Amino acid sequence: MKAKREALTSLFTAMRDGKVDEDIIDLLLLINSIKGIYTTSSCSGRIGILEEPALGAKPLSRWLIKVHREMTFEEADEALKKAEKGLIFLKSQPPIFHVVAEDLEKAKRLHELGLASGFKYTTFKVISNRYLVEINATEYLTAPLGRDGRILVGEEYLRFAVEVGNSMLKRSKGRLPRLGENFRKLRKELGKDELFYELAGKFEIEKERKLP
Amino acid sequence: MKAKREALTSLFTAMRDGKVDEDIIDLLLLINSIKGIYTTSSCSGRIGILEEPALGAKPLSRWLIKVHREMTFEEADEALKKAEKGLIFLKSQPPIFHVVAEDLEKAKRLHELGLASGFKYTTFKVISNRYLVEINATEYLTAPLGRDGRILVGEEYLRFAVEVGNSMLKRSKGRLPRLGENFRKLRKELGKDELFYELAGKFEIEKERKLP
Repeated sequence: MKAKREALTSLFTAMRDGKVDEDIIDLLLLINSIKGIYTTSSCSGRIGILEEPALGAKPLSRWLIKVHREMTFEEADEALKKAEKGLIFLKSQPPIFHVVAEDLEKAKRLHELGLASGFKYTTFKVISNRYLVEINATEYLTAPLGRDGRILVGEEYLRFAVEVGNSMLKRSKGRLPRLGENFRKLRKELGKDELFYELAGKFEIEKERKLP
Repeated sequence: MKAKREALTSLFTAMRDGKVDEDIIDLLLLINSIKGIYTTSSCSGRIGILEEPALGAKPLSRWLIKVHREMTFEEADEALKKAEKGLIFLKSQPPIFHVVAEDLEKAKRLHELGLASGFKYTTFKVISNRYLVEINATEYLTAPLGRDGRILVGEEYLRFAVEVGNSMLKRSKGRLPRLGENFRKLRKELGKDELFYELAGKFEIEKERKLP
């Protein structure tokens, strides 16, 4: 799969540059080591504060703070001082994996696997002739906090909302071990991909991480 | 399609009982009149206040208020008096259509159609051998308002959050006409379904609504 070669090169380069979320690296390596599938953009889940200049103007949005672990009240409070223009949202989002499957059968297996691992918003798309499965969960928080630099919530609410957001993140991240187990089973079924090990060798991944 | 016969019977019965969102009835009739596809659960979009006894305990949640149009501050304020136990969320959700396609080709057309109509979270699933396309948008709001009967936001914030939720609903509902045009085009491509007209006749739908 030429596309897989490119995707792996991209992943290993990003890993080398420290751009891949630490807590899903082992899972990404596992998934990519399986024959017939590979990951594209994935995220380990995050909580943060986003400023959107206009509703729906997503490319112009900027994060005032974004972390892949629980966020503290102090961090949120500090970040809000940077708000200038547009709607301010507290956002909490679960881990999300985009996995390309080389055929419909594998896409269906991935879809079942995501659901069986508790990621209830697992769906897929067929784009050109690629099957792209999105392993996604339900724990999304989108809470408006203010507008144009003006914060419309007090300390008590902000502590509360950050706590709810953190709980949601903790819940969804808590399913990652189960997802990992299910991918280990899938690997026994579908087999290892030599291409993965070839490229991992080229990029000397084993110096930093244990390979699956 | 036996399953389509059952789905249509279900839809027409629900319409007769006033259980289908008024503002998407014509669109649902149009979609179902097309050969090879049919709708299952769909919603015209809504805003409301939900009480969740425990994070993730979705079946035990109850709506304190839920409307398929913009909500007023007064309605929100009044509904909050009914809060008792659990997390209280203001929620705004876009229109969502679930469309079953009888084969992969049609599922892909539906997927393109949803995206081309501005419903950017359009995805699909393959369940048993059915292709289920979910036409969904991005405008979701999930804002915690309080816990266990205690409201942690003041009037100014509640007005603001309801306004943001209403704007999101308005934006996503604003795409329904485009979705309708695209389904009209799809109907020219795929053709009319005689089964739809047969059952619409049996249920005397034409007495209430103009058939597509």
